[in-house]
Amino acid sequence: MEYGRKYNFAGGPACLPLAVLKQAQESLLNYNGTGISIMEMSHRSKEFTHIWNSARASFRKLLSIPESYQVFFILDDASIQFEAVPMNFLAGRSRANYLVTGYWSHVACEEAQPFCQPHSVWKAGSQFTEKIETTGWDIDPTGAYLHYCSNETGNGTTLYDFPYSSLPEGMPLMCDMSSEFCARQIDVSKYGVIYAGVQKNCGPSGVTVVIARKDLLKKEHVLKVTPPVINYALINDVPEQMFNTPATWSCYVTGLYVDYMNKVGLKHFEDLAIRRSKLVYDVIDSSAGYYVNKVDPKCRSRTNVVFHLKGGETLTKKFLEGADKAGLIQLAGFAPVGGIRASLYNAMPMEGAEALIAFMKKFRDENKV
Amino acid sequence: MEYGRKYNFAGGPACLPLAVLKQAQESLLNYNGTGISIMEMSHRSKEFTHIWNSARASFRKLLSIPESYQVFFILDDASIQFEAVPMNFLAGRSRANYLVTGYWSHVACEEAQPFCQPHSVWKAGSQFTEKIETTGWDIDPTGAYLHYCSNETGNGTTLYDFPYSSLPEGMPLMCDMSSEFCARQIDVSKYGVIYAGVQKNCGPSGVTVVIARKDLLKKEHVLKVTPPVINYALINDVPEQMFNTPATWSCYVTGLYVDYMNKVGLKHFEDLAIRRSKLVYDVIDSSAGYYVNKVDPKCRSRTNVVFHLKGGETLTKKFLEGADKAGLIQLAGFAPVGGIRASLYNAMPMEGAEALIAFMKKFRDENKV
Repeated sequence: MEYGRKYNFAGGPACLPLAVLKQAQESLLNYNGTGISIMEMSHRSKEFTHIWNSARASFRKLLSIPESYQVFFILDDASIQFEAVPMNFLAGRSRANYLVTGYWSHVACEEAQPFCQPHSVWKAGSQFTEKIETTGWDIDPTGAYLHYCSNETGNGTTLYDFPYSSLPEGMPLMCDMSSEFCARQIDVSKYGVIYAGVQKNCGPSGVTVVIARKDLLKKEHVLKVTPPVINYALINDVPEQMFNTPATWSCYVTGLYVDYMNKVGLKHFEDLAIRRSKLVYDVIDSSAGYYVNKVDPKCRSRTNVVFHLKGGETLTKKFLEGADKAGLIQLAGFAPVGGIRASLYNAMPMEGAEALIAFMKKFRDENKV
Repeated sequence: MEYGRKYNFAGGPACLPLAVLKQAQESLLNYNGTGISIMEMSHRSKEFTHIWNSARASFRKLLSIPESYQVFFILDDASIQFEAVPMNFLAGRSRANYLVTGYWSHVACEEAQPFCQPHSVWKAGSQFTEKIETTGWDIDPTGAYLHYCSNETGNGTTLYDFPYSSLPEGMPLMCDMSSEFCARQIDVSKYGVIYAGVQKNCGPSGVTVVIARKDLLKKEHVLKVTPPVINYALINDVPEQMFNTPATWSCYVTGLYVDYMNKVGLKHFEDLAIRRSKLVYDVIDSSAGYYVNKVDPKCRSRTNVVFHLKGGETLTKKFLEGADKAGLIQLAGFAPVGGIRASLYNAMPMEGAEALIAFMKKFRDENKV
């Protein structure tokens, strides 16, 4: 590929569009005639405030976010949102609902324990690779909210059709959307809070986007122990919703990425995600058990195709080494899950998936089990 | 200047060495033959782990950090450390000591309130611009620690000689060193915890360095409500002390910056800081009251030279506009303080300070009051 670049299947931080990287590179020493780099700019300067607000507006456009929602960036990956959600909405309440469909939603539920009794609505089996049931949930009506993770990046499962009608009236829905954020159209109006680390589908690491229904952002809901940097109600009240110093460069590159997506629109990337992942799942399904993915086809992730080799660890190692030599890199599975993970985020071109399946077919031919 | 660059006096994010920026720019599309950008690299990859650990080692070398201290990076600016300090060390204790010498140490003291009764050891006057007293402090011996901020970036004051001997035996000293971090040699062994956002003297925004005495990092000291991403004892226990996804690009550029400093050593930058700030203070002091800095010379900051114009707001605005036209940018004072702030961090060459004083003299000649 151009500039000796390779196809990068990392789970996040992940591949970025070459056009975005080139734009960032060109502006690095002297941004737009300011005489300084973005990295050297006060976060309160006119120029950076413009970059910050443009990036927020760009997300608003891409995802059709209603005016009744606030959009802001928090300097962190999404992990601290596992605390931010209970801290911002639990004051005076003792219970909250958690849907556990995989590794990260399980962690979110565990981390809510210092603040409330997290109530498990439904929990997937121990490997988190079976189907996701959307009926028969046990929702506690006294819970302050229901939290879930729409795409489990380690396990490779997605809850595509959340059963919104099963939510008790008025109960806000909180969603960690990190690994499928901006990879398909969603109806933002169904949510109380959506949060996502951008380092998968729409930026480098260092930024978490929070989309929050404005009427929920009330100081009286916030626990006293909440650090100001994740206090949504406080952030909502400060100018530009910028409370502290963000990772300015990461915000800038994120803005470039979302602008890049807006040029063709979200639908283009959603279609691409469907076609790209289908290529890989088809090779898995037609491999006569050589490649194994046990996920119910209805909830197979388009962004994280997770599979194991029937040939076990030795062959998995050989697969990863061979892929690496073929310029297909960062395919190792999420550590607690193992195997192979092909993350196919927005910046992955169709050609990347084609190169991957060509390698998978060739590897199977050359390595019988 | 080269590449149309200007002298940048921002309080942080702040100027970076051109050599560092160029190195970052060159590697941006394809780092070291990996075929991808640093920004696209898994934080758990071999390459990024190397970057991460090298940057930590580089700080260790620059600051002569003893082996009995852990060095790790947290993805945030230093603000959340105002919570991290009480959260990590207060379990079972109800009091902590705070020295209040300026805006940020005042905020730190306020933000400790949900966790303890913060006890004010000594507090500077309302403008935080008088001298800093180092005797007659009222230290609560039952306090879990004493916290201070060694350089007040908004007010332009530094506590150069902390009276270590006044600390009760065994009481750990916690210091927010952000705006003078790596600008002078310090005796790390006097501290329990040193923390610093790197976006002033040694990096772009997105990274806070924590240097913590290992024997203090005990799970039993940590409050239950502490988010894992700022739980020092937990971070100390995970591989590479990397708990979650860092702002990878920011870590990389920080590493380049500290490597750059290590080539000539800290002493060089300390001497430069003394000479550079003296130039500006001398012009202020010899201006017959045209430029005003009320700070006791013993605690004038070398990194943040804060001053007001006798001519008031109108002339201050004219000063800022004129400076901007002369290629001397981001000189506006910290918002709660106003006036002018010339931040003179490690990447500011002597020529920048010389250009500033030339402008100050010319401006005074041309704008009588």
